[in-house]
Amino acid sequence: MSGQPNGHSTPPKVDRSNLIPFSSRLKEGRALALDVWTIFNAANLPPHCINLGQGYMNFAPPKWVTDAAEEALNTVAPNHYSHPRGRIRLREAIKAFYGPQFNRELDVESEILVTSGANEGQYSVFTAFLEQDDEVIMFEPFFDQYLPSVTFNGGKPVYVPLHPPKDSLENPTSNDWTIDIDELRRAVTPRTKLIIVNTPHNPVGKVFTKSELEAIASIAEEFNLLVMADEVYDCLVFDGKEHVRIANLPGMWDRTVTVGSAGKAFAATGWRIGWLIAPKSIIQPTLAASTRIIFCSNSPLQEAAASGLEQAKERKFFENQLAEYAERRAIIVDAFDKLGMKYTLPHGSYFVLLDISNVDFPDNYPFPSSVLGRGRDFRACWFIAQEVGVSSIPVSEFYCEEHANIGEAYARFAFCKDVDTLRAAAERLQQLKKYLK
Amino acid sequence: MSGQPNGHSTPPKVDRSNLIPFSSRLKEGRALALDVWTIFNAANLPPHCINLGQGYMNFAPPKWVTDAAEEALNTVAPNHYSHPRGRIRLREAIKAFYGPQFNRELDVESEILVTSGANEGQYSVFTAFLEQDDEVIMFEPFFDQYLPSVTFNGGKPVYVPLHPPKDSLENPTSNDWTIDIDELRRAVTPRTKLIIVNTPHNPVGKVFTKSELEAIASIAEEFNLLVMADEVYDCLVFDGKEHVRIANLPGMWDRTVTVGSAGKAFAATGWRIGWLIAPKSIIQPTLAASTRIIFCSNSPLQEAAASGLEQAKERKFFENQLAEYAERRAIIVDAFDKLGMKYTLPHGSYFVLLDISNVDFPDNYPFPSSVLGRGRDFRACWFIAQEVGVSSIPVSEFYCEEHANIGEAYARFAFCKDVDTLRAAAERLQQLKKYLK
Repeated sequence: MSGQPNGHSTPPKVDRSNLIPFSSRLKEGRALALDVWTIFNAANLPPHCINLGQGYMNFAPPKWVTDAAEEALNTVAPNHYSHPRGRIRLREAIKAFYGPQFNRELDVESEILVTSGANEGQYSVFTAFLEQDDEVIMFEPFFDQYLPSVTFNGGKPVYVPLHPPKDSLENPTSNDWTIDIDELRRAVTPRTKLIIVNTPHNPVGKVFTKSELEAIASIAEEFNLLVMADEVYDCLVFDGKEHVRIANLPGMWDRTVTVGSAGKAFAATGWRIGWLIAPKSIIQPTLAASTRIIFCSNSPLQEAAASGLEQAKERKFFENQLAEYAERRAIIVDAFDKLGMKYTLPHGSYFVLLDISNVDFPDNYPFPSSVLGRGRDFRACWFIAQEVGVSSIPVSEFYCEEHANIGEAYARFAFCKDVDTLRAAAERLQQLKKYLK
Repeated sequence: MSGQPNGHSTPPKVDRSNLIPFSSRLKEGRALALDVWTIFNAANLPPHCINLGQGYMNFAPPKWVTDAAEEALNTVAPNHYSHPRGRIRLREAIKAFYGPQFNRELDVESEILVTSGANEGQYSVFTAFLEQDDEVIMFEPFFDQYLPSVTFNGGKPVYVPLHPPKDSLENPTSNDWTIDIDELRRAVTPRTKLIIVNTPHNPVGKVFTKSELEAIASIAEEFNLLVMADEVYDCLVFDGKEHVRIANLPGMWDRTVTVGSAGKAFAATGWRIGWLIAPKSIIQPTLAASTRIIFCSNSPLQEAAASGLEQAKERKFFENQLAEYAERRAIIVDAFDKLGMKYTLPHGSYFVLLDISNVDFPDNYPFPSSVLGRGRDFRACWFIAQEVGVSSIPVSEFYCEEHANIGEAYARFAFCKDVDTLRAAAERLQQLKKYLK
């Protein structure tokens, strides 16, 4: 209205939206880009869309686990600061549960760190160890949070592909996604500090084999690299495959930090309780970082996570949960089989990659601007969510820009949902038939 | 044993403790120093020592607040990821409770960010806004976490003193700690990015006056600086003083981020729920940082915090809580009066500074190495904890090394404890009489 002869003196409108410039670190690592989770958020999709996008459960954690949180809320100390290392009850529970899996007596004072979700734990490792321009190797596709977590801490991501199954393969599994160890070796430079090994792998579901991990380990040893073993899906390994911990390979304990998650273990992704298991030389600097970033993790839900680990074995909880997830996986892959569509059978995690290259959709479909200009998979996933009523996540998000075209062939479906929901999704997905080329 | 002719071939012992060097950022900002909280941790003190050191309550949050967390634990969604901005119920509750205090309709989509404690919120602001070597001004004494939070993000702390009350002053209050606005102005350089204003102030208890805040604001405007208003003790302002929010001063909303804490408000320091209130231009980059650092905050305790804010007004919760804290403060300062010792009467927060310069202790007292080589206050606080059985925190920890001598005159006592505990502490403190010079 300014300048109009209306008798009011309106002050000139100043655009204060960029009054104080934000840090240049936000310009890297897609930090300000509209992320896939926001684009494919339930709020942006049709109201009755079945959400197989983001990986969280549509069921609650077990009552015998949440009971401990309720108890904690009704006492004094577990409502207050925990030790920055984590509450001793949880550290003891982690020691008792995981120690045997690492074949060692874990020291609760120096080899275990409770974190505010696996995410914050990983962030703190980067804060603790990366110098400006240090390089971090990650296998593509990669969990999208790694990228900005590395760049925020001055690091440079370096990508080594997991090679997709050959087209000729009829029924590929996640372990037909392969690494080329020479490619990994060529990616190492004098600035390489750390390799991220995510097994079971999100989004591929790959459970790295012992020989693959041995090859990675030998490179880590040769070039004196840290290894971040992101094993948050360690309780979800199917088909009798063995979950090998790279920290257990000869010589690897000293250079490996293993990442775990109560959210994945106990269907409680919103509790933000995770943990790191590593030698003192890794935990101590990471504790120094984490203490400053968050000071400590929330106390009541640490009690719940502790209670879960304490009782899991006797209740055969993880065995039963695995069987439930196997049933969930079967429902979703059966739907793909019925459609005659190609997918990667995941040996681990709760994700399955569907090959969507033969899903046909009109170029002039009314796509929102957020998916235009992104990979073909963004449009395909949007189209499927709108027309079929099942949401998924486009996999090019898990690739760097240069290699996004590999991911464009896939949509990631999460099967961490109850069987009724998955059955309904499976039925809806049959409508895809009419859109197949 | 290596080299001894014992017939065993022992491999040479390699010191692997520093296999992979940690980041140089940990060498700054006291990140690896043994912090005061660890030294004066209950575990290091006599078993029956009354803990008036670290600022957490020895009572539980109100049942009508925790009830909402219990409810959340028994449903599905509040056990899973919340939106990185925070759960909408909590953002709506913050809007309803704080909006009137800021005289504005807060936008829940762009002006409120829920964080994992005030601490993580502050850290994320630094991540979002600091460039390498940007300067951050903080008043001394300062909350000790500011220092490494700034340096981890590449910033340089710049200190401006709060000047202690003149010695001649008989009964000093926290507002006799004064700022010299010319000193603040001289501290500004072309690299200054941000000023931290902590009111009510930890550890001094100072409630900044409107005219002090106006002077700070005018400098922030003149030099185009961000202001971080750390107001986590906003519900603890005594003696009819007015808590002025610097964000409400003319022109200041656009450059101010105000920090709040459910832990301080609801006696739940271990919930790790805090919030930031600021314009979109500040919240948006901070959200980008926070989303990568922690992804989101824990969901069940966000529900509890929301429930607390929703009901606080009707229950007159903060009015009643303030009266309880005034009683607690009276118990502890009466003890100091009876001793004839000098202290700063705090108008805000739950801390009181005791002048310990006339506490006499033997130089050859068996001090642990952790307090030797630190300020005199470290030894005094240790001695008082051992001999009198009440722990406190040495205040030189809240000063940079150069100015630590100012802090050496004080011990910080926290009165966020129930009255029985405080009465017992008050009684024990009378034993100090025999050690006064």
